[in-house]
Amino acid sequence: MPTPVRLADVVAALGGVLHGDGDLAITRLAPLESADASSLSFLANPRYAAKLAASAAGCVVVAPAQQDLVLARGAAIVTPDPYLYFARLTQWWAARTRPAAVPGVHPSAVVEPGALIHPTATIGALAYVGASARIGAGVVVGTHGHIGAGAAIGEGTRLAPRVTVGDACVLGARGILHSGVVVGADGFGFAPSQGTWVKIEQLGAVRIGDDVEIGANTCIDRGALDDTVLDDGVKLDNLIQVGHNVHIGAHSAMAGCVGIAGSAKIGRHCTAGGGAIILGHLELVDHVHITAATVVTRSILKPGQYSGLFPFDDNASWEKNAATLRQLHTLRDRIRALEKTRP
Amino acid sequence: MPTPVRLADVVAALGGVLHGDGDLAITRLAPLESADASSLSFLANPRYAAKLAASAAGCVVVAPAQQDLVLARGAAIVTPDPYLYFARLTQWWAARTRPAAVPGVHPSAVVEPGALIHPTATIGALAYVGASARIGAGVVVGTHGHIGAGAAIGEGTRLAPRVTVGDACVLGARGILHSGVVVGADGFGFAPSQGTWVKIEQLGAVRIGDDVEIGANTCIDRGALDDTVLDDGVKLDNLIQVGHNVHIGAHSAMAGCVGIAGSAKIGRHCTAGGGAIILGHLELVDHVHITAATVVTRSILKPGQYSGLFPFDDNASWEKNAATLRQLHTLRDRIRALEKTRP
Amino acid sequence: MPTPVRLADVVAALGGVLHGDGDLAITRLAPLESADASSLSFLANPRYAAKLAASAAGCVVVAPAQQDLVLARGAAIVTPDPYLYFARLTQWWAARTRPAAVPGVHPSAVVEPGALIHPTATIGALAYVGASARIGAGVVVGTHGHIGAGAAIGEGTRLAPRVTVGDACVLGARGILHSGVVVGADGFGFAPSQGTWVKIEQLGAVRIGDDVEIGANTCIDRGALDDTVLDDGVKLDNLIQVGHNVHIGAHSAMAGCVGIAGSAKIGRHCTAGGGAIILGHLELVDHVHITAATVVTRSILKPGQYSGLFPFDDNASWEKNAATLRQLHTLRDRIRALEKTRP
Repeated sequence: MPTPVRLADVVAALGGVLHGDGDLAITRLAPLESADASSLSFLANPRYAAKLAASAAGCVVVAPAQQDLVLARGAAIVTPDPYLYFARLTQWWAARTRPAAVPGVHPSAVVEPGALIHPTATIGALAYVGASARIGAGVVVGTHGHIGAGAAIGEGTRLAPRVTVGDACVLGARGILHSGVVVGADGFGFAPSQGTWVKIEQLGAVRIGDDVEIGANTCIDRGALDDTVLDDGVKLDNLIQVGHNVHIGAHSAMAGCVGIAGSAKIGRHCTAGGGAIILGHLELVDHVHITAATVVTRSILKPGQYSGLFPFDDNASWEKNAATLRQLHTLRDRIRALEKTRP
Repeated sequence: MPTPVRLADVVAALGGVLHGDGDLAITRLAPLESADASSLSFLANPRYAAKLAASAAGCVVVAPAQQDLVLARGAAIVTPDPYLYFARLTQWWAARTRPAAVPGVHPSAVVEPGALIHPTATIGALAYVGASARIGAGVVVGTHGHIGAGAAIGEGTRLAPRVTVGDACVLGARGILHSGVVVGADGFGFAPSQGTWVKIEQLGAVRIGDDVEIGANTCIDRGALDDTVLDDGVKLDNLIQVGHNVHIGAHSAMAGCVGIAGSAKIGRHCTAGGGAIILGHLELVDHVHITAATVVTRSILKPGQYSGLFPFDDNASWEKNAATLRQLHTLRDRIRALEKTRP
Repeated sequence: MPTPVRLADVVAALGGVLHGDGDLAITRLAPLESADASSLSFLANPRYAAKLAASAAGCVVVAPAQQDLVLARGAAIVTPDPYLYFARLTQWWAARTRPAAVPGVHPSAVVEPGALIHPTATIGALAYVGASARIGAGVVVGTHGHIGAGAAIGEGTRLAPRVTVGDACVLGARGILHSGVVVGADGFGFAPSQGTWVKIEQLGAVRIGDDVEIGANTCIDRGALDDTVLDDGVKLDNLIQVGHNVHIGAHSAMAGCVGIAGSAKIGRHCTAGGGAIILGHLELVDHVHITAATVVTRSILKPGQYSGLFPFDDNASWEKNAATLRQLHTLRDRIRALEKTRP
């Protein structure tokens, strides 16, 4: 249990207008449902106002439009964007409560000659840093991490335990890579020859911008000739596949299990829901949003929301509709025939 | 090749009624197709009775209803549920033939101060155990395992090589985690701000019950504020994504490549086929069964089987039907128009 | 930057007919778009002839049919199959420019008694080789690799950092396994019993042929009783799930995020696009090609291309069509009714 903080300390650090007792001790950040009298919670969506009534939260972060709802029940911090405020609050809380990484190279780590490791960086237990790799200030390479030869990790980037960064790949500053991430495995490239596949060696690398977060077990393949590129601020969830020579524009975000095939070019501020697939060599312009589980089979040159998933149903209804779907083209012809014989 | 066992020894250990020679030596458990005269096989599904006729198995585990089929050809063990019997037989066989883990901490492992490791636990080569972690009796942490600070692993749980359990995550007893599993990576949470994403630090953990099995490279994210929870007896296959604050009820089972988005609440005794996706903040009651590759986009409050996948076809037929599908709404209107002009 | 090569050296090594100055120094292989005067590029598809006109490439590999286009602008290497030539060129280039692995066991690696490691093999830093494992000539086990007890790795096979090969699994010659691969985790097998799942121990292993490549974080489960088998020349991309007792025939190739459920039998020379799912116990004959994101729910006994994915659309159009799809069976009945009342 971390040391409690006073509400006044929260507001001093993060702003907002406090209504209520600044000396109230907060021991936990909590959602409305599970909050208790020493919890600080938030109401970001007016839809959840009913939860507010039932909540025991000691204090709630709220927008001006909802503040009357909250003030009736207890302390509140009023701020224009409660969700953003809460995001910053979690960062402040984590910085208070999580132990800082201890700079230095763990004695069990293996560092090859020529690696340049900044004295404020942390190389965890049983990690490996290859020849001529460059590890910036404040970087954390977690336990069992692998930094390939000639790779570079920018200032303040944190690699969770067991992250692999391949040879010559370059990561920007302030990134976060979660466990199991593989940056720089070979892209999937073969030339067919007499019924067999001849490997195309993948000679490019991966270049990742600043403030990029990559989820657990996600893979970013190296380019075939040029590099695979993730621009600044890209956020990828877990178990995502990014093929060789993909380019993802700044501040685009993808949910878990998304697959992006080789040489796709995704614009800035795009999003993709879980399990969406974007085929290779396509272009998506800025501000394209792909619904979960949608398969993008051609380029999208106009911003907007795009979808393509089979609506689920109870199994019996689905079976009937799916069977009919296999005759849909015939049905269309029958409609045409009916139209021609219309009286 | 393990030491053979006598049929009589099998029945002495696991029950069932033996018909045939108790001294028959068994060297292998095998499916009917590849069994030989020293193999013990099983017939669980009467549909496969034809395979039985062609099988060379020395002995077959069979239900009373099929025993006449079997006894005509050789030895049999008769038992009410042959598949369950066979499951227990594989466990007994594995216990006989697999080398037991050697208790103790491998000299190449790194254990931080304050970790509590039971003397009967095994910490494999090159593994890491963080500060204040608690490792229970008979636990096996495989090679390259990572147990985060303050994490706890319950009695008898076995971690295959290269499993990551994040800080403060708690696993129950008798669990099995396969290679590449990541328990406790950050959930995917950001507040949008002026076109960029502001990280919401994930302050919760993961709590996993007893008798839970988790497949290779599957990810269970830690909760944002509260914990992500898997109840007793949950079975997850490989490459599954479980988002933050998901709750999976007891004895639910998910096949490979399933994705469960944040805050979904899955009931007890549910199943999902491979590649199914369950969107966030949904509720599935107990005994809901999701067909493979189905995308669940709203809560399911009634037990049953639910489906939603596009029926595959030869490419030419699919192309015609898919093209028509994009005009389905118009077709409906044309049917309506025809109905209005019906004579 | 690697040492430049002369065009004449390229042709001496790989063949083809050189038109132009054999002394031209090449410093890079590059696609037409980003090539410069010291780059060697290729034109494999006549569709990209427009890119050729705009390219600054110093030399282009080209087929006889396109050589006039190329010769007008500068040097060329003419060869019947430019894409295959380029594949071999990347291999030759990689062999020139990548540092060779240094044979021997890194002092930080852990090798159990009874392991047989060929003197020309490389065991990387912090890797683990189990008891009685056999590591062939020229094999590379990358950093943090795990080779289980009794496993065998054939001559010349290269394991990238952090690959797990389970006990008793067998890999052929000249294979490539990328980071995060798990060969030989347990298949997903349970017998239901009174609402719980009883584990079926997975007693088989995995057998992999020669010249097989397996992408990052892909999982190949061990068989339940018999083995899971990948034949020679199989190529798997990243994040693929191969269930227990699957058999994949020679030279079949699967793109990222494919899932193949247990006991499926895939023929030779098959392909599957990204995210395709093949259900369990099915058979696909040779030369079956599955479109991306298609779910194969029954056996395919005729070669050809098969598809089944929902065509995506702008969200509003999709919503209307998807809603109608849920009434498709009813629409068919209405068409029938109209047909019966046709004048």
